[in-house]
Parts: sequence; structure tokens; C-alpha cells
Amino acid sequence: MTTTTAKTATATTDPATAADRAGTTRPTTSPTGTTTGALAYPTGSATGYVHGYSETEARRLGDQANTLVELLHAGTAYPPGSRVLEVGCGVGAQTVHLLAGSPGIHLTAVDVSADSLAQARTHVAALAPGARVDWHHGDLHRLPFVDGDFDHLFVCFVLEHLADPPAALAALRRVLKPGGTITVVEGDHGSTFFHPESAAARATVDHLVRLQSLAGGDGLIGRRLHPLLTGAGFRDITVRPRTVYADGSRPDLVEGFTRRTFIAMVESARAEALAAGLTTAEEFDRGIADLHRTAEQGGTFHYTFFKALAVRP
Amino acid sequence: MTTTTAKTATATTDPATAADRAGTTRPTTSPTGTTTGALAYPTGSATGYVHGYSETEARRLGDQANTLVELLHAGTAYPPGSRVLEVGCGVGAQTVHLLAGSPGIHLTAVDVSADSLAQARTHVAALAPGARVDWHHGDLHRLPFVDGDFDHLFVCFVLEHLADPPAALAALRRVLKPGGTITVVEGDHGSTFFHPESAAARATVDHLVRLQSLAGGDGLIGRRLHPLLTGAGFRDITVRPRTVYADGSRPDLVEGFTRRTFIAMVESARAEALAAGLTTAEEFDRGIADLHRTAEQGGTFHYTFFKALAVRP
Repeated sequence: MTTTTAKTATATTDPATAADRAGTTRPTTSPTGTTTGALAYPTGSATGYVHGYSETEARRLGDQANTLVELLHAGTAYPPGSRVLEVGCGVGAQTVHLLAGSPGIHLTAVDVSADSLAQARTHVAALAPGARVDWHHGDLHRLPFVDGDFDHLFVCFVLEHLADPPAALAALRRVLKPGGTITVVEGDHGSTFFHPESAAARATVDHLVRLQSLAGGDGLIGRRLHPLLTGAGFRDITVRPRTVYADGSRPDLVEGFTRRTFIAMVESARAEALAAGLTTAEEFDRGIADLHRTAEQGGTFHYTFFKALAVRP
Repeated sequence: MTTTTAKTATATTDPATAADRAGTTRPTTSPTGTTTGALAYPTGSATGYVHGYSETEARRLGDQANTLVELLHAGTAYPPGSRVLEVGCGVGAQTVHLLAGSPGIHLTAVDVSADSLAQARTHVAALAPGARVDWHHGDLHRLPFVDGDFDHLFVCFVLEHLADPPAALAALRRVLKPGGTITVVEGDHGSTFFHPESAAARATVDHLVRLQSLAGGDGLIGRRLHPLLTGAGFRDITVRPRTVYADGSRPDLVEGFTRRTFIAMVESARAEALAAGLTTAEEFDRGIADLHRTAEQGGTFHYTFFKALAVRP
């Protein structure tokens, strides 16, 4: 999917319709892309970023964003002139779609990784050359903006990596003006199921959740968005599942999501899972082989993302 | 939700929009209701019907049908005069909504349980008095209809209870005219996840899947609809997830689905789970208590049903 078509897609206002068209609600950990080093953490914490920062990983995040753009961005369209803050923009995978869906906004994009931010800049310059974007290298917990500086906040695949999501939401709430909105998108790996069933395949997904937990994050955070936003004092909170369901009738989704997004994400954690002693190479590889069977003829795959919208009182 | 409102709901043609309105995609095993005895099998097989046939169970199936009617029936509307076959109508929980959504059809409703069929008759007489319905007591594998007798088939929460779904689909395909459609709705208990997380709660759901498996059925059948219909020789198959997601913003759904449908369903398997030696009373009750926490403040609940539409070549 190109940025041009994405623009049309994000202009729709009925996410469920878009999700049905996409045949989806899908899994992922997070394209927040950030920081330097192999496993740096997107918010400057000492814990690791479970997806790493390799070129392959950057490509995976791009593939994922393109496959899922309609699903993730449908319903998000800010009026021209709005001051919008994207937190944890990473390599800009979502940034280009955010800009395509809301032409004329004044976007500020923040990331804790200078390297990722540089990639995001290049990516946006190529795909949305006329966009007005301020780039800011920094930690979302200590943003240098005045209270109520932004009309809207967009936070996609970020909270899952944080050790203290309530503290992050409190920090974000501060820079949102009263009456402004926050949009939060997260996956939930516990929503993963598939056919043919396989204990080995399920174990590989569990390892990913475990590694993310060891890194201080939560791969099951999607189901917690409503209580988290409630606890942070937001109001008018609506959380909706956005499901990816891929079967033989959707070869594009099988390729773009099941194989190139989900399985690629799980596979990328192989070395870490082995290093952490969670599994053996043989077991892990059997699980990956079984995951690939869900993308073959007769296979099916299900994953649920959650998209939340809430207002600062 | 009453039959009158259901009629409006089922007239919509966009299931995803309806699902979003309902905030859903929900779990269940199956309101096929049938047969005599405590655990008789809906298709005359020697295996048991996991939900039993008590009055409480009949009420649960009714609650479930009302909460989920929009989610399950959206997109299903047959032209007046169509010859439609509902297989495994049970106590008529879905029958009344099927009739409300497709006024003027000529419906034939089949069930293997004479008792359930009698209840369905009474239920339909009360809620859809003008409807044209032929009631037939019999086994779906040996239907006494000529080849191609029906324009459309509706099969809701039935396949999950069958020992041989491919054989059932082959038998059903025979009575469908070429170009006619089959609609299949099933849950998938593997789609269940919730907050707060609890191993004890998850175990109770696993027991239900195990009991259904011991009875010859498959509580994880939702994910298999596409390959099953493909294998049975149908074409133009589309399968879409219909998700129930309930949180504090949807007290109606929390009550109607999480508590009165899902938890009630799991609780109804208590005696069997204990008799089968799957758990202890203490463990089971702790799991149920934890499930109830997902319906309290700050809790969330997710379940996915699948709805399939396919054509006989």
C-alpha cells in the first residue's frame, strides 16, 4: 500500500468498516523504532528494546506499517492547523501515514533514538515532502513543551515497551490541552491464535512476551488500555479491537501480515530467546516452522490490536 | 435487545460496523440446544452435548442470543420467498432473529432434539407469530430433503459439537441448490483473553475446550471454518471475525456477555470438569472468581466469533 492510497484509507471515519475490508485485527509488538545500539530502549530506560534496531528490523516495521495502515489509521484525521504530537515516532513508519491522513497539521515527532529520528526525517522527506514537522530528540517522560501545548497526541506501539505506562501517560497528559485527544494503538500477543494449532508455535509467541517482560515492557498491554487511560485521568475513553484475520482468501494479508510482520517479528527474537535460556534452537525452529504452516494452504491466523481514543478533561 | 430492535439491526448489511457498534466479537460454545437428557448430542451422535439441556442453560442461550444478535446476524438478510434451512435450531434462540432479519422467507428448522424443537416452536410462535416455519425433528446428516431443495442454509453454533464436520458439511451441501449460500457462525474459545490476567481463569476455559473435545466436538473450530468450507467444495468463501470486546465503557456488554453469557457458560461445566478429574472444586471456583474480576471495574474481556459465507458451485 502506498502513501497515496493510505491517504484515501485514513480519510474514512469508520474503523470497523475498514477493519472488515482489511479482514483484520492483527498482532505485533511495536514499530516505535528508536535509540542506538542493538537493544536500546525507546524511552531512555536502562531496559532493552525487544525488537532491536537492525536494518532488517527497520524493513519489517515498514512492511508492517504498510500492511496495517488502513487498520491502524482509519478514524484518525486531525483538522488542518492542529498541533499534533507523535510520541515514539521511531523510524517514521506511522508518521508518514499520520501525515497522509491529516494534511495540513503541524506535527511534532519525538523519539529517544537520534538514529531512528534521522531515518524518520529521511523517510518523511521522501514520502511527505511538503509536511510541516518539528523533530525532537528526547524522552517522553521529560518533554520540553509547556502545559497544554498540543491539540492531539498520537502514541502507537510505545506503551508496550515502557516500565511504567501510568507515569508515561501522566507526562503526556500534561502537554495535551484540555479537551484535546490522545490516540493510543497497541497490540496484544495473547490474542494470537492460528490453524493448524501447535504447542511449539505458541511457545515461540510466549517467549516473545517473556522477553518483552524481562525488558520491562508488556506484550499483553492491548487489553489494558482502558484501565490505563482511566487511571491516568482521561475521560470519554473508547477502546476498540482491530483484528487481523488472514486465511487463504487473503494472500496479501497472509504474506504482508502473517509472514512478513508476525512471523518475522517472532523470528527476530531467536538469538535473545536462546541467550535467555527460554528454549533450544531445535524447539524454537520447530515453532517457527509451525507458524509458517499457518500461512500455507488451509492455514488461518488471528491477531488483535487495540485502538483507544480519549479526551483530557 | 428485543425482536423488534433486532429486526432493524439485522437489516444492516455491514457486519463490521455493527460489530463496532456492539463493541464486539464474542465467545460462546453453542446455542444449538437439542435432544433429551442431560448431555445429549445435537446430531444424534453418541457423544454428549457439552452445554446440557437445563432450564438455566436455555435461559443462558437466550441471554447470549439477545446480547449478540446484532453481531451474529448483521449481514444476513434473505429475500422474501427464499427457502431457507436452519440446521440445529435448538430452542430457537437464533431462529427468531433469523426470521426478524429476513421477513417473508419460508424457513425449515431442524433439530435432533424433540424437546428443544418444541421449545423453539413456542418461542417463535410468541415472538414471530406470522412467520412461515416448517419444523423438522431429525439428524442433519440424514436430512429427508431432495437435492438442492434450499436457497440458503444457516448453521450457527452447530459444527463445534460434531465429531465429523466435513461429513456434516457434505450432507448440508447436498440439499443446497447450486448458487445458493451457506452461512456458518462459530466461536473459538482460544480467542478468550482478559484483564486482569489469571492462570486459574484461563484453566477453566481450557477445561471447557477439553470437555468439548472429550464429547467429540471442537471448541476451537472458529479458526477452521475457511479450510472446512474449502474442503467441502464450497466457493467464494469469506470468513470474518466478529469480536466481543467489553470494558468499563460498556456495562451492558459486560453484563450481557462477559457475565451472563461467557462466565455462565464456563460455570455450567463445573460438575463435568470435576467428574472428569480435570480440576478440583477449589481451583475451579478460584478460576470463576477471577473471571468475575474481568467484569469488575478496570477489567476487560475479549472473545472472537467467526462468521462465514460461502456458495455451492
